[in-house]
Amino acid sequence: MKYEVCGGFFGRYQELVRDVVIPYQEKALLDEIPDAEKSHAVENFRQAAQMLREGHCDGAFYGMVFQDSDVAKWLEAAAYSLGAHPDEALAARCDAIIDLIGQAQHPDGYLNTYFTVKEPKRRWTNLQEAHELYCAGHMIEAAVAYAQETGKTKLLDIMRRMADHMYMRFVEENVPGYPGHPEVELALMRLYHATGDARYMELARCFIDRRGTDYFAKEAATRGWTLWNMSAEDREYAQNVAPVREAQDAVGHAVRAVYLYTGMAALAVQTGDETLIEACRRMWRSVTERRMYVTGAIGSCYEGEAFTKDYHLPNDAAYAETCAAIGLIFFGRQMLLLERDGRYADEMERALYNCVLAGMQLDGRRFFYVNPLEVVPGVSGEAAPLRHALPQRPKWYGCACCPPNVARLLGSIGQYAAQVEGNVLYSHLYVSGRVQGGDTLGGDVEVETAYPDEGTVRYRFRPKADAMRMTLAVRMPAWSRETRLLLNGQPAECRVERGYAYVERAFTAQDCLELCLDMAPRCVYASNDVAADNGRVAFMRGPLVYCAEGVDNGGAVLDLRARMDAVPEALAFDPQLLGGCAPMRVDGWRVAPTEGLYSARRPERTPCRIQLVPYYTWGNRGLTQMRVWMPEM
Amino acid sequence: MKYEVCGGFFGRYQELVRDVVIPYQEKALLDEIPDAEKSHAVENFRQAAQMLREGHCDGAFYGMVFQDSDVAKWLEAAAYSLGAHPDEALAARCDAIIDLIGQAQHPDGYLNTYFTVKEPKRRWTNLQEAHELYCAGHMIEAAVAYAQETGKTKLLDIMRRMADHMYMRFVEENVPGYPGHPEVELALMRLYHATGDARYMELARCFIDRRGTDYFAKEAATRGWTLWNMSAEDREYAQNVAPVREAQDAVGHAVRAVYLYTGMAALAVQTGDETLIEACRRMWRSVTERRMYVTGAIGSCYEGEAFTKDYHLPNDAAYAETCAAIGLIFFGRQMLLLERDGRYADEMERALYNCVLAGMQLDGRRFFYVNPLEVVPGVSGEAAPLRHALPQRPKWYGCACCPPNVARLLGSIGQYAAQVEGNVLYSHLYVSGRVQGGDTLGGDVEVETAYPDEGTVRYRFRPKADAMRMTLAVRMPAWSRETRLLLNGQPAECRVERGYAYVERAFTAQDCLELCLDMAPRCVYASNDVAADNGRVAFMRGPLVYCAEGVDNGGAVLDLRARMDAVPEALAFDPQLLGGCAPMRVDGWRVAPTEGLYSARRPERTPCRIQLVPYYTWGNRGLTQMRVWMPEM
Repeated sequence: MKYEVCGGFFGRYQELVRDVVIPYQEKALLDEIPDAEKSHAVENFRQAAQMLREGHCDGAFYGMVFQDSDVAKWLEAAAYSLGAHPDEALAARCDAIIDLIGQAQHPDGYLNTYFTVKEPKRRWTNLQEAHELYCAGHMIEAAVAYAQETGKTKLLDIMRRMADHMYMRFVEENVPGYPGHPEVELALMRLYHATGDARYMELARCFIDRRGTDYFAKEAATRGWTLWNMSAEDREYAQNVAPVREAQDAVGHAVRAVYLYTGMAALAVQTGDETLIEACRRMWRSVTERRMYVTGAIGSCYEGEAFTKDYHLPNDAAYAETCAAIGLIFFGRQMLLLERDGRYADEMERALYNCVLAGMQLDGRRFFYVNPLEVVPGVSGEAAPLRHALPQRPKWYGCACCPPNVARLLGSIGQYAAQVEGNVLYSHLYVSGRVQGGDTLGGDVEVETAYPDEGTVRYRFRPKADAMRMTLAVRMPAWSRETRLLLNGQPAECRVERGYAYVERAFTAQDCLELCLDMAPRCVYASNDVAADNGRVAFMRGPLVYCAEGVDNGGAVLDLRARMDAVPEALAFDPQLLGGCAPMRVDGWRVAPTEGLYSARRPERTPCRIQLVPYYTWGNRGLTQMRVWMPEM
Repeated sequence: MKYEVCGGFFGRYQELVRDVVIPYQEKALLDEIPDAEKSHAVENFRQAAQMLREGHCDGAFYGMVFQDSDVAKWLEAAAYSLGAHPDEALAARCDAIIDLIGQAQHPDGYLNTYFTVKEPKRRWTNLQEAHELYCAGHMIEAAVAYAQETGKTKLLDIMRRMADHMYMRFVEENVPGYPGHPEVELALMRLYHATGDARYMELARCFIDRRGTDYFAKEAATRGWTLWNMSAEDREYAQNVAPVREAQDAVGHAVRAVYLYTGMAALAVQTGDETLIEACRRMWRSVTERRMYVTGAIGSCYEGEAFTKDYHLPNDAAYAETCAAIGLIFFGRQMLLLERDGRYADEMERALYNCVLAGMQLDGRRFFYVNPLEVVPGVSGEAAPLRHALPQRPKWYGCACCPPNVARLLGSIGQYAAQVEGNVLYSHLYVSGRVQGGDTLGGDVEVETAYPDEGTVRYRFRPKADAMRMTLAVRMPAWSRETRLLLNGQPAECRVERGYAYVERAFTAQDCLELCLDMAPRCVYASNDVAADNGRVAFMRGPLVYCAEGVDNGGAVLDLRARMDAVPEALAFDPQLLGGCAPMRVDGWRVAPTEGLYSARRPERTPCRIQLVPYYTWGNRGLTQMRVWMPEM
């Protein structure tokens, strides 16, 4: 299956990624953005190549130990762009970088610029901290994508050699160890699918099965060097509390967690290992039922970029890393491969349209790493416990994992939008475009929609012959109170199961299946256990969480309260507003200032209309207060 | 003036301090409390004494670099107890400790067990980190108190020698430097008042005037050792941002801040230095008008135990150190000496009855360092950003600054309750007891009150001759909506100025001046700028902030909402409840659980009565949810 994204919301985003984000990020990686954090990521490969060629290098390694992965993620994003829109100049530049990567590879297949340039004698001695397997994983993903999208296999060949090198070490020679930062597991599963070579799956399984032991403690005791003085006893951070099949809660570094779960689920899809499947389900429930923001963000705490405890979801102090929400989408996709259940796609959609999109400025040139749900300029980004919660997107980061991660996800969003199982086409996300169903489906399916601005999704059929006998399984999102499914204008006969409406038919070119979702704005309430949201309401429309910004509301939002009896009202789509969106209004109160810090006199209130905009658009109009969860009155 | 506390609320607390807290803390300092953090504080003096006597010692220094100050604060508390209630056995034990302290003093007057035992060559080389002046200050306070309360001057003589040593170094020899942790300034002002020796004031002024330069940076560059790798560039933490007369906001470590401001104000009382007075007023306003919790707690952040930014007052993540609230009371008292204005006493009272008292278990055997305004067991004390916010009081602390600080404050509360200026007696806090007015007032004034349980305070007069011609200036707290002042049952003629009612008269033994405060429970609202309290209400009665605890409310408080139109109702004083208190009830709602973490269906609510207890009593009945700021509905 190939999903050509075309027009619509994600068509625009893919254009932005192609026209702005990829060139911008390329400049960032080449250190050509003025006043931005330095990257040096491409230069590190140059240094490593020189080191291998000449035995020394003129410069030095610079950046995070995982700086290579920024190049990998950018290459992967570029691959998707090239796949959709050939661009000779970009392809040439990518190929040149790939040549450089090849020159930085050791004869034995090993590839990592940090160790090549800076620590040539310390390869594989510090799996807990040093991200070698993580970087390998990202480059494997780039290699698979580049081969699939462009047909060029040079990078794939490079990364197969690296994977073979790892396989020899960790499987054949049975050297102990597994990554401190999971990622390579999911990448190896992709490599397995791309090449059919089961050794890569075996290596992924090896890393997954070994996890949760005292390996890091043993390593720390013998290695004699450290990068960050990370304690081997911080077993949560490194996803090392217990063997993966025994873990009870999602803990520790949120990105590591969801990358690991993605790898576990991908493996379980192949092996059908029931205890592993159950562990994946348990982790999914832990994350999405008790430790996730309404925006789909996860990881509520700066310290360790981590999950904390059930229902501890502070809005202003949220960590809510963009990469973690992206990882949740990866995880959801693998869960959908494991079992077709709409709640996986519901949460993927929540994370995508809210946290992930908020991670990028609408112009594609600035990025959030941290995505708070409440921002007060003067406090956010400044008060010590909120120093991480910036009120404006920076141009780049010293640790730049998020920006290229957004680019590669948006560039490949079609891969998340649909799934083919037998002759069933699952439509998980409503993305305008064309699904090439090939012989499996007997033709293509076109998806037309102005979602999420509007709630109608039309599926049309392009059979190779007269008709396509297939089943279209359309997700019925849990949030849509009234959902209609029409076939050629009449209620469609369908079977609804676990969040999908299954329509089986020999579809012809004249058929149109129309999904009509309930796009009325709605109030959302959090569990009482979420202390931060007690007495507050959030507003959503379709998959979009809304927020109030000071710039729309007379300068401030902290003095606004939503009326308890108010019915939020969607305003007309405004193509000029924030890249085009439908704002929302809700009746509320503006509370007058108190006399002093604390007052026994209830401050006066006056009725007002609160203007809301989609959360993903926040922070695009200068420094201003922002709030998702509005106190009710 | 001497204020004998007798009966009433603080009489009971002083009994508790005498009967339980002082013996308990003595045991803690002697490491005789099972399962409590080790102190070793007295043993450090033993080691230091042996070191001086024999040139070596059998043991080692243990504990914080400022461990000596725990002994000092305990001695000061014991002194107040001995002054009120002679106790030969306790006096003998104190004298023995004082003898030990004397033996630990160097011939040149220097006293500090850390440097004597552990770092004899490094005296005075690390003022930024090493707390030498801080420890000296606390021991000076103990010495002054011990001399004043018991008439015994041995410790005073010891500490004068230490003060002379410091004077010689920092004033006569003009060696640069000032303390990283202010405290000695206020202590030197006490020593000046106790001895009349102006050199001590001169030394205090020297430290205050020098502050705000690059001294710590210079020291760090030359000293060649560190205790905590504290950066000299963290100028806020060490109260070193600017010369004290130029500071604009209260920043950095909250205890350091208010101890410094106390010293500044004490100096300004003597010198009348207008720029210093204005700086004190500016700091008072910064703290109490923008950076203080409704409980009088200050320092909203764990990192650096510090102030953050205006209006950033998270309830669950509050640092709100007990010592900082105590320091705010010290500061307020000096401000009252500078200028009689009831708002200083109002805030002292707020901090005293709420944050400070909450710092101690009702049984006097457990203590809070951190005083959050919202606690959720399972999250508080466990989630990484709330790890400091324990839901239960521990028995002792490795850094045990708070417990003896509570003891010495409660033991000397009379010194904060009143003030004599000329023939005017100011009644700041309503503390049952007897003010010995001596010749200045022409007799004594007795204060009878069941405050804060009841709102009536009766002043009776015990003239030496027929009558006492004097002015009684009674604080009219800003929170009391209707305050009556009766002289012998009739409205008293008085002049009200800046929060005090001045009654001038030749008072006879038959006169009774009666203050009647409005003790009706009241709703309190925070400024809109306090994001954490938006849409929430707190409840107070008199000076007491109330809170809801799960144990009184069916197990939980997160599902409670206060009715917007509710009128809180005080229940009868219950002598059996939490050491005797009047609980409060308010109409509210109990909100049913949502379906799942987020739900578009507004959960049902049922009317309920919310039970509230005084905040200072919280956490005395096991692990349970607690909330001060209740969302309204």
